[in-house]
Amino acid sequence: MDGLPLNLREHIEKILASRRDGFALPGAFFSDDALYEAELEYIFARHWIFLATGAEIPEGGDYRTYQIGHYPIFLLRRDDGAIVGFHNTCRHRGSRILQQASGIAGATLMCPYHRWTYDLDGHVVGCGGTGEIARSQPPLKAVHVRQIEGLVFVCLADEPPADIEEMRRRITPYLAPHAVTNTKVAKQDDIIEHGNWKLTIENNRECFHCAGHPELLNSLFEFLGEPDVNTMSDKERAEHRRFLAARDTSQALWHQFGLPFELIEELHGRATGFRTERLVLDGTGESMTPNTRAASRRLLGQFTDARLGTLHLHVQPNAWFHFLADHVLTFSTLPLGRDRTLVRTTWLVHADAQEGVDYDLANLTSVWDATNRQDAEFVAETQRGVLSPAYLPGPIGDTEFMVNRFHSWYEERLRAALPP
Amino acid sequence: MDGLPLNLREHIEKILASRRDGFALPGAFFSDDALYEAELEYIFARHWIFLATGAEIPEGGDYRTYQIGHYPIFLLRRDDGAIVGFHNTCRHRGSRILQQASGIAGATLMCPYHRWTYDLDGHVVGCGGTGEIARSQPPLKAVHVRQIEGLVFVCLADEPPADIEEMRRRITPYLAPHAVTNTKVAKQDDIIEHGNWKLTIENNRECFHCAGHPELLNSLFEFLGEPDVNTMSDKERAEHRRFLAARDTSQALWHQFGLPFELIEELHGRATGFRTERLVLDGTGESMTPNTRAASRRLLGQFTDARLGTLHLHVQPNAWFHFLADHVLTFSTLPLGRDRTLVRTTWLVHADAQEGVDYDLANLTSVWDATNRQDAEFVAETQRGVLSPAYLPGPIGDTEFMVNRFHSWYEERLRAALPP
Amino acid sequence: MDGLPLNLREHIEKILASRRDGFALPGAFFSDDALYEAELEYIFARHWIFLATGAEIPEGGDYRTYQIGHYPIFLLRRDDGAIVGFHNTCRHRGSRILQQASGIAGATLMCPYHRWTYDLDGHVVGCGGTGEIARSQPPLKAVHVRQIEGLVFVCLADEPPADIEEMRRRITPYLAPHAVTNTKVAKQDDIIEHGNWKLTIENNRECFHCAGHPELLNSLFEFLGEPDVNTMSDKERAEHRRFLAARDTSQALWHQFGLPFELIEELHGRATGFRTERLVLDGTGESMTPNTRAASRRLLGQFTDARLGTLHLHVQPNAWFHFLADHVLTFSTLPLGRDRTLVRTTWLVHADAQEGVDYDLANLTSVWDATNRQDAEFVAETQRGVLSPAYLPGPIGDTEFMVNRFHSWYEERLRAALPP
Repeated sequence: MDGLPLNLREHIEKILASRRDGFALPGAFFSDDALYEAELEYIFARHWIFLATGAEIPEGGDYRTYQIGHYPIFLLRRDDGAIVGFHNTCRHRGSRILQQASGIAGATLMCPYHRWTYDLDGHVVGCGGTGEIARSQPPLKAVHVRQIEGLVFVCLADEPPADIEEMRRRITPYLAPHAVTNTKVAKQDDIIEHGNWKLTIENNRECFHCAGHPELLNSLFEFLGEPDVNTMSDKERAEHRRFLAARDTSQALWHQFGLPFELIEELHGRATGFRTERLVLDGTGESMTPNTRAASRRLLGQFTDARLGTLHLHVQPNAWFHFLADHVLTFSTLPLGRDRTLVRTTWLVHADAQEGVDYDLANLTSVWDATNRQDAEFVAETQRGVLSPAYLPGPIGDTEFMVNRFHSWYEERLRAALPP
Repeated sequence: MDGLPLNLREHIEKILASRRDGFALPGAFFSDDALYEAELEYIFARHWIFLATGAEIPEGGDYRTYQIGHYPIFLLRRDDGAIVGFHNTCRHRGSRILQQASGIAGATLMCPYHRWTYDLDGHVVGCGGTGEIARSQPPLKAVHVRQIEGLVFVCLADEPPADIEEMRRRITPYLAPHAVTNTKVAKQDDIIEHGNWKLTIENNRECFHCAGHPELLNSLFEFLGEPDVNTMSDKERAEHRRFLAARDTSQALWHQFGLPFELIEELHGRATGFRTERLVLDGTGESMTPNTRAASRRLLGQFTDARLGTLHLHVQPNAWFHFLADHVLTFSTLPLGRDRTLVRTTWLVHADAQEGVDYDLANLTSVWDATNRQDAEFVAETQRGVLSPAYLPGPIGDTEFMVNRFHSWYEERLRAALPP
Repeated sequence: MDGLPLNLREHIEKILASRRDGFALPGAFFSDDALYEAELEYIFARHWIFLATGAEIPEGGDYRTYQIGHYPIFLLRRDDGAIVGFHNTCRHRGSRILQQASGIAGATLMCPYHRWTYDLDGHVVGCGGTGEIARSQPPLKAVHVRQIEGLVFVCLADEPPADIEEMRRRITPYLAPHAVTNTKVAKQDDIIEHGNWKLTIENNRECFHCAGHPELLNSLFEFLGEPDVNTMSDKERAEHRRFLAARDTSQALWHQFGLPFELIEELHGRATGFRTERLVLDGTGESMTPNTRAASRRLLGQFTDARLGTLHLHVQPNAWFHFLADHVLTFSTLPLGRDRTLVRTTWLVHADAQEGVDYDLANLTSVWDATNRQDAEFVAETQRGVLSPAYLPGPIGDTEFMVNRFHSWYEERLRAALPP
């Protein structure tokens, strides 16, 4: 982390101290170079990061490469089915070993530069000299990998936060019925948002801005938390009545199918912050499509009825999800620079669903394609605005409470991780 | 201003002290990051900046957005005709509110992100909650705006320099006959010059380089100040004879039409430095066109004769102008980075002039289109040269005296504005 | 060198001390901004840099412009045949004077900005005023130029390393038979590699990676130094037998033609590090072409037999060469940024050789076109890998010994040049 202030802790703490609880983050949070480097190291390299689903690395030998901050890594499915992760830097002179976005490895991995060769446990098995020399080399540095019902999380820290096990235990009953492990990728789309990664996450943590997502609002109710009926407009009151009616129907179905739906919210006070809740959907209540009907005729898992709403999941610091009856949406956010952020969206359908037969790809993806584009615009315009010295952080409203909790988590985690 | 040296004043003063009066600026003036940030804050955010003419925001509700250094702002014409300016950052979470280069506002302004709404005085009138909450929010931060005969200046400082009033008083008699308030935009062109903004201004402040502007020299005499006839070449002597003859004719016309023409030069020793002078033109003496004849048959204001030369105006730090009998040229310079500068050129003609009937657009704009391209090349090559550690600032010649005065003003203003 | 740490020597020495002899360079060598600036100033501006061959500036008046770090310079052939070099920054306000990549100068050089004019010794002979003023100006700052058998080296230091004379004395007998002074440019190609310049040089200093260059291996033996026959594969043993046979034939021819071939290696312990050796080639032993036959029927100098292998030359810090019987390859490396490097490859053939008659350009250039592209990929992937905080410098193998010597030279030279 070249170029950081000598007294890094003091520098970062000064910025952190400028945040007022209940208000937006001051501009330095989006412009300070040292803070950004600290986030890469103390947020992104010390916490569990959602990167992929198992469906993206389906067969033994399949690999995919990723970049988390300054770290190139790769994930590989071994023939025994396990997904393992390694830092993607050769133990010889440092070249990336796997250089494509994805591919198929053989029995060994070979760095194309000088042909140093590794087995799938990362041990050096060939380095142009004798086997003795190879065996004495340190192996590829492993990356911690955890799969939770088909979601693949990695952690670059030597000692990853243990509380992912608690998250696994608590969210598994919610996720399991959607059988993500029996899905395939229908589409994956990378967007580069021209803003700081925290703006991307903030944007995801409230629906106060959802009026800017007309396609999404066909299915998603704008209500988060318990709205105040007294201050509603006529339009809002009508929506609220639909919501109350739909909630009764939905909860009856959820009970019938044994689907847990109660809110679990552990967004701060811990390393692996998360939140899950089964949400009622508007319209037919089936899916996030233009007409709110299921996009895929082949429902996930053992589902026989599509009217299940959406199981919503946030995981700090970088991911959110929608698990529907017919498809799954995963969103993985990775910082590319102080003011550039990668948002990778993946649409998953049942492993046996056939495009053109069971689902129409455009229909499946149109709502979130539009929503992502709209959010990218919101993020870019906010980045421009918060860089202004005239920017004054404003109040975070009741419906944005999760933005504030994200801030709390972020501040806690930086303070906990910063070197003294 | 992240990343500035802790002892900013000391750092900047050391650079300022490296300047020798009468010599070009040392390389650090064009490469130092902290100096650049200080210029944004202490030159561009504390002085009157020329941004536009009223003709660019002609109707009530019309707005245009701008970026001055790190500050997004907008100008808006209210229905009462006044042009007002505000920082373009929402009081909620900081998004730019108006996101297009120009447009038409309604009775209120709404940030597209979370629909916070402002009246045209900048007060929050809606923020998704009750009116009580809205009324307690701070209003949009205003930007000071002054119009002088149709030229729109803004100042981002809380207490803008008062001496703009003296400039207004003194230049109004010069400008008024050209009736800029009764013009329309014929063309506006943005060029990004690949050099520091001071190189752009230096380039404008002397005609020693005008041999590189063959199109411009059809109309513009190269003489600035009083040349030494003894050292002239034959070609220069012939030009000088034409100049002396034209001056007599012109001054007679200026007297006849009551046009003030004497030089006013207040380029330093004050915040709002300016210089104006009515200049004789070569050829027919009418306009800055290839054949020196007026480009527009519809003369400005009450003019009945086009042979009026050009009323020249500089305003520190970022603008220059030519007011001709038939059209007006405005030039607004804004730094985009240490080595990138926006130069916006606007050609204004009489509000009633019709393109294709009263004027040919290519004929109107060809001289300064060519001149701007040539100047952009000069600036880019100078930026490359002055970054060389082998660069040695050379002497500023007699015909470049205004470059030196610009440097004096610049140094005075930085010293005056820097925090202790 | 704006923005460097105040205690530059301490900062650089800390990085240098992190290098372990016999291991790859730690990541900071490829990412630290201050180190990069120090390299520009203390490596590239203090040592002899190979820039061109005389064939690129063939006639009196011909010039070419270059950029070495922050310094624009130019080389010019005077009518007396001498090649001179100057800093390409006007003594007036610093513009680059010669602005094209190459061209033809007249009796004087004129800066296009304000027409300051210089004679070909760099003296100011015109500056828009009287001759008196011109004569009192400092002349263009000269750049030291040395030609060695048609290779043009420059040094930006006031007192360039004297040991270039020893290199000249020792390599001249090797180079002279190839008569580079009687060649012409067949092709010149610029590649921008997306990595630090030291990765480009490291890549050139070993053939351990040559399995990645299938086109090159038609002619080049992978052996550098004396390989261990005991650890060879069957394929390597067959290659080694071809090598031993070819060596006998080649050395007989070299003796017959009086061509020196013994290794001279002075890669460190001095400012002007170099290494030369005549190498045996595989196949017909003639040239670096797909079929290993000479690409040009018109052999260089007085050669009557093409089976001469390749005379290999390295010069620290930035160049390497292959002198063949029928053509010459020169490679000049210049840093463009911390992670961007220009590699200029030039193919030279006999001055009288005619394209399409004596040589086919595609055949002449295809091997190194392919090899350069492959090397650019190796360098870019290594740059990505070594930026990872998880990168651990690995051991430099026996066949990479020259990489280690390059590191030693680099460290010595920085330590010697750094200000106290």
